[in-house]
Amino acid sequence: MASKKKGSPPPFIAARIAQCRAEMAKRKLPAYVITQHMDTFYMTGFTGEDSAVMVTPRAVHIISDSRFEEVIDVEVPWARKHMRKGQLVDEIGKVCHRLKLDRLAFQPDGLTVETHATLRKLAKPTRLVKAPSITNQMRRCKDAVELEATQKAITVAQDAFKATRRKIRVGQTEQEIAARLEYEMRRRGATGPAFDTIVAVGASASRPHALPGPRQVKKGSAILLDWGAVLNFYRSDLTRMVFVGKIPPRIGEIYKIVLDAQLAAIEAIRPGERVNDIDAVARKLITKAGYGKQFGHGLGHGLGLNTHEPPSLSWRSKERVRPGMVVTVEPGIYVPGVGGVRIEGDVLVTSNGHRVLSNLNKDLRSAVI
Amino acid sequence: MASKKKGSPPPFIAARIAQCRAEMAKRKLPAYVITQHMDTFYMTGFTGEDSAVMVTPRAVHIISDSRFEEVIDVEVPWARKHMRKGQLVDEIGKVCHRLKLDRLAFQPDGLTVETHATLRKLAKPTRLVKAPSITNQMRRCKDAVELEATQKAITVAQDAFKATRRKIRVGQTEQEIAARLEYEMRRRGATGPAFDTIVAVGASASRPHALPGPRQVKKGSAILLDWGAVLNFYRSDLTRMVFVGKIPPRIGEIYKIVLDAQLAAIEAIRPGERVNDIDAVARKLITKAGYGKQFGHGLGHGLGLNTHEPPSLSWRSKERVRPGMVVTVEPGIYVPGVGGVRIEGDVLVTSNGHRVLSNLNKDLRSAVI
Repeated sequence: MASKKKGSPPPFIAARIAQCRAEMAKRKLPAYVITQHMDTFYMTGFTGEDSAVMVTPRAVHIISDSRFEEVIDVEVPWARKHMRKGQLVDEIGKVCHRLKLDRLAFQPDGLTVETHATLRKLAKPTRLVKAPSITNQMRRCKDAVELEATQKAITVAQDAFKATRRKIRVGQTEQEIAARLEYEMRRRGATGPAFDTIVAVGASASRPHALPGPRQVKKGSAILLDWGAVLNFYRSDLTRMVFVGKIPPRIGEIYKIVLDAQLAAIEAIRPGERVNDIDAVARKLITKAGYGKQFGHGLGHGLGLNTHEPPSLSWRSKERVRPGMVVTVEPGIYVPGVGGVRIEGDVLVTSNGHRVLSNLNKDLRSAVI
Repeated sequence: MASKKKGSPPPFIAARIAQCRAEMAKRKLPAYVITQHMDTFYMTGFTGEDSAVMVTPRAVHIISDSRFEEVIDVEVPWARKHMRKGQLVDEIGKVCHRLKLDRLAFQPDGLTVETHATLRKLAKPTRLVKAPSITNQMRRCKDAVELEATQKAITVAQDAFKATRRKIRVGQTEQEIAARLEYEMRRRGATGPAFDTIVAVGASASRPHALPGPRQVKKGSAILLDWGAVLNFYRSDLTRMVFVGKIPPRIGEIYKIVLDAQLAAIEAIRPGERVNDIDAVARKLITKAGYGKQFGHGLGHGLGLNTHEPPSLSWRSKERVRPGMVVTVEPGIYVPGVGGVRIEGDVLVTSNGHRVLSNLNKDLRSAVI
């Protein structure tokens, strides 16, 4: 069932819809369906999941189910509402028929092969056409509303870290520290952690994505923490080291190399620069210091409604960074049996350079508790 | 680069691989690629994400990147390791060439249209063929290792609820209660919440998926909590009501209807029963009481490595439940402006009936604090 729309979207949403329609007009697309949760939220501000948004030149359609009916009336009264009784694809097919669409553009990175095959049958005679993801391009550069939300997610993550750091004691487990860190983020308004929080004590930090376990903090431990908050759907992503009492000499040496690499890479960020060149700035310094093989991952990634989103700061891509992009810068060195060091900050590309959005202290001495 | 394998998988993993190979043999598939994180974990026990598993009659291949190299050596030394330098699909293509595969089966619900198109090109001359998801079928019925993990995830969620419930006070916000609940799960070994924790005070509970906000607990508040833990990748999912001081009369009336419906539906669970018939048991009782339109969602869903997985206990499906399935049973009634009641438990289908895995009290009086 479709409903009438009321009112109009807030200006920042109206601007996104207008930009989407301009892209659609350029490519002569009569309708564009969005099915990924963060994309449907981005385009409309509607927070419900398992839903679809269809943009046409004349209206924005929300296709959802009864769990979200009240939410739709509050959040997007200006959209046309279609409440499904069957599967989501069934209702998308029905909307195609109602609107008598000859073609429907979809996101090739948003539909699985299976869903695509089902929708193709259900939508007939409407034809499905692949459209390079419009939202994917739009979301690369953040608007003012997004930057404000990202900054809040960073602030909450930083404040939670400071509170947690003060309470780190010998005998605590990685698991307990992660629990505390996530609780402190939640208390400050986060709706959850942006990803599985990493707390790695000692040698376990040599695994870049170590999950917290029962390992205990000891005197002299080096602890790697990689964490982030979700707040109003936007995310932060930070990594810091904490040294308990003293700095293990080899780790201290590695720390200085990683920090130099991180600072140099951040300095290299400005509009028009290629992501592989920014990655190379950090990688050259680390390689020169003899740890090139111990820095196996890319330098960083885009950050926004997803923890990992384009652009990737990687040797694999030659994409140029643009104003409004928010990226993580997170070089690391991992030595099996010894441990690992990673330092990560969140950086905005501005019109003439960059601005570091995160501001937790990162000099070596300040990492000692 | 490919590596040699060492040792052999633990018995429960060997059994899964054997079952997968039997399915492949039946369908004459020379190789089967798995790309979804929970599927790669299920088939091998390897915890790394962004990785692929390829099963052939002679070996199990892990395709991953440097972040997980150490983890692979520890968790799956018996598998063949392929470390990618480029994208994951690039390396899957290379493995096809190395193994001289004429065909590679993939999961149509596991690849996006875009990834599929890229892999099709890269894998040539290997041909991609759709295979109805083997893991999807296998994962429907849990083995002993999975049931033990699920039970632990339920126990942790229940203990955390009891601890949180004791600390609920007038003046607390939904957000604070959610923070406490998640902290208590974490402290008990959970790696995170199984989904966005729902804490809805008063009328906000009429939205089945209400996110916790700044609303405060008052004397006489009805609070709906829907939460779950992830532990060793397995998940729990529970819903309970808490009444502060007294039970709002209308909500109390609704509670009794929902509880009757939930108990009756659980009683109806036995092997061979159709999911739509189980759903209908609860739905008829609620409809008879005059609230049919206020119970808009399905009765429940499968629970395991994902919070929502097949089978769906829904009027839309006629699938029959089988021994080893774990499902949620969660009828609800939602009245806009008034509030909502949902009661949820996790139930195992046994060889001759069912066993309720969750055991938090649910009679109306015990819900008052």
